[in-house]
Amino acid sequence: MRLTDEQIERFSEDGFLILPERFSKAEVAVLRQAMARVFAQDSPADIREKGSGAVRTAMGLHQRDEVFARLVRHPRFVEPARQLAGGDLYVQQIKINVKAAFEGELWQWHYDFATHHADDGVPEPKALNLHVFLDDVTEFNGPLYFIRGSHKSGPAPAHHDTVSTSYPLWVVERETVAELAEAGGLVSATGPAGTALIFGDCLVHGSPPNFSPWDRAIFSLILNPVDNAYTRTDRPEHKHHRDLTPVTALDDDCLLQVLVG
Amino acid sequence: MRLTDEQIERFSEDGFLILPERFSKAEVAVLRQAMARVFAQDSPADIREKGSGAVRTAMGLHQRDEVFARLVRHPRFVEPARQLAGGDLYVQQIKINVKAAFEGELWQWHYDFATHHADDGVPEPKALNLHVFLDDVTEFNGPLYFIRGSHKSGPAPAHHDTVSTSYPLWVVERETVAELAEAGGLVSATGPAGTALIFGDCLVHGSPPNFSPWDRAIFSLILNPVDNAYTRTDRPEHKHHRDLTPVTALDDDCLLQVLVG
Repeated sequence: MRLTDEQIERFSEDGFLILPERFSKAEVAVLRQAMARVFAQDSPADIREKGSGAVRTAMGLHQRDEVFARLVRHPRFVEPARQLAGGDLYVQQIKINVKAAFEGELWQWHYDFATHHADDGVPEPKALNLHVFLDDVTEFNGPLYFIRGSHKSGPAPAHHDTVSTSYPLWVVERETVAELAEAGGLVSATGPAGTALIFGDCLVHGSPPNFSPWDRAIFSLILNPVDNAYTRTDRPEHKHHRDLTPVTALDDDCLLQVLVG
Repeated sequence: MRLTDEQIERFSEDGFLILPERFSKAEVAVLRQAMARVFAQDSPADIREKGSGAVRTAMGLHQRDEVFARLVRHPRFVEPARQLAGGDLYVQQIKINVKAAFEGELWQWHYDFATHHADDGVPEPKALNLHVFLDDVTEFNGPLYFIRGSHKSGPAPAHHDTVSTSYPLWVVERETVAELAEAGGLVSATGPAGTALIFGDCLVHGSPPNFSPWDRAIFSLILNPVDNAYTRTDRPEHKHHRDLTPVTALDDDCLLQVLVG
C-alpha cells in the first residue's frame, strides 16, 4: 500500500496521482451503505444545491458514521499521505461531494490552499486531498480536471467567488488558468468506483457539471501536517476539524471488518 | 467522398457518423478566416451569450460570405447527404456555434426535429445536420454528446425550455434521457479541427459548457429533403431558409479555389 519511488516522483512532477481501483468492490459497497446512512441524516454539516436542494456535500463524516471513522485511518490513505508529507497528519476535513445526475453544478478552477490559508490561517500548502470514487467516474458525469504541474509555481492568483455556484470559492484567474493549462495540459480524473486520487494543496483543478443521467459521488479526505495546523477557527468545525491528534493506520481490512464487527 | 455501405449501415444503427479530418488543415484555415469576417459583422442573425454578450451562434452564413456559400454546396457534404436522404435537399439552416473559453454554456438534451416540427411545420424527421470542427474538439471544451441509437424509437417526449440557456430549446424529458442512455450509451464527438459529423433529426444530443481555456467553434449545416419542406414561416428566415432550390455539389477543391479566385 506504500507508494513506489516512481509514484512519489510522479506526484512531485504532476501534482497528483490517480490510483485505479485502490478500493475493492466490496469496500465500495460498505462505503456506499454508509453514504446512504449519512445522507438520510439532516445535518448542518450538509451543503445543498442552489437549485434542487439536493445534498451536494456532506461533511464531518467521521463524527457521523463508524465506517467513515475507519476510512480516515485507512492504511491506503494514511501510509501514502505520511510518505508524501513526511510526518504526522490530522484530519482537516472529510466529506462526500455528490454531483447528482442532471443537477450537479460545476466547480470553477481553484486550488484548496487558497481557502485553507485565507479562511483557516494554514501557513503552508502542505495538506493532501485523498479521494475515493463511490461511483464510476467517466468523462460524462463531472470528473475532476487537473492542470498537470500547476502546483509547481506555488499558489496561483485567485479571487473570492461567491456568485457562480452554491459554495463560495477562491477562483483562479482566467489568464493564469490559460497559462498553466497551455504549459501542463488538462487531465480528466476518471476511473471505476474504488479508484483513489491524491493531490496537493496548490494543484489547480475544477470540474464540469453533471448533466448525464448518472450520479457521481466522491469521498474526499484532507489530511494536513500537525506542524502546519490552522491558526484561525472562523469556519465551522466540520469545515476544518480542531482535533490535532495524528491519524494512525488501522488494519488493511478495517472496512470489511465493519460487516462482522 | 461518398459514404461506404458500412458507414451507411452505421448511421442507420447509431444515428450519427464521426468522420475524422474530413477537411484539411488548409481548408480549415479558409473557413476560420471566413468565420472571422462574419463575426466582425453585427448581424441580427447572431445570437449572443446571456452573460458576456459574446457571439454564441452566427447564422445565415451562406448569405454573408462567399466561403460559406461554397461550403453548403461542398461535395463532402452534398454527396453523403444525398446518399442518406435519397433525393434533393435544400439549405434549411447554416450557422457556427461557438463555445467561448470559460464562457460557453451547455446545451440541454434535445433533438433538432422537435424544433423543426413545432416551429416550422416540417412533416418528418428527415433533415440531416452536418458539422465541421473549426477548432480541435476535446473532452474539455464542450463536445457534443450523442446518445447512441436514440433516434430509433422516433421523436422522444420533450418540453419547451426557455429558461436554462440563451436559446429556447425543446428539451427531452430526463426519464427518457436516462432510458436511452442506459440502452445505447453516450458518445463524445471529439476530434481535430476538420473532423466532420453527420447526424439525423431525431438523434438526442447535448453538450456541456466550455470552462476550459480553449475556444470551440463548430460549423453546422442542416439540409432537409425538398419534399419534406417547412409548412410554416413563423421563425425568421435565418433560422429556416425559404429557398427550396436543391443544393448541387461544387468541385472538391471549391474552398481552396477561393484563395486563387
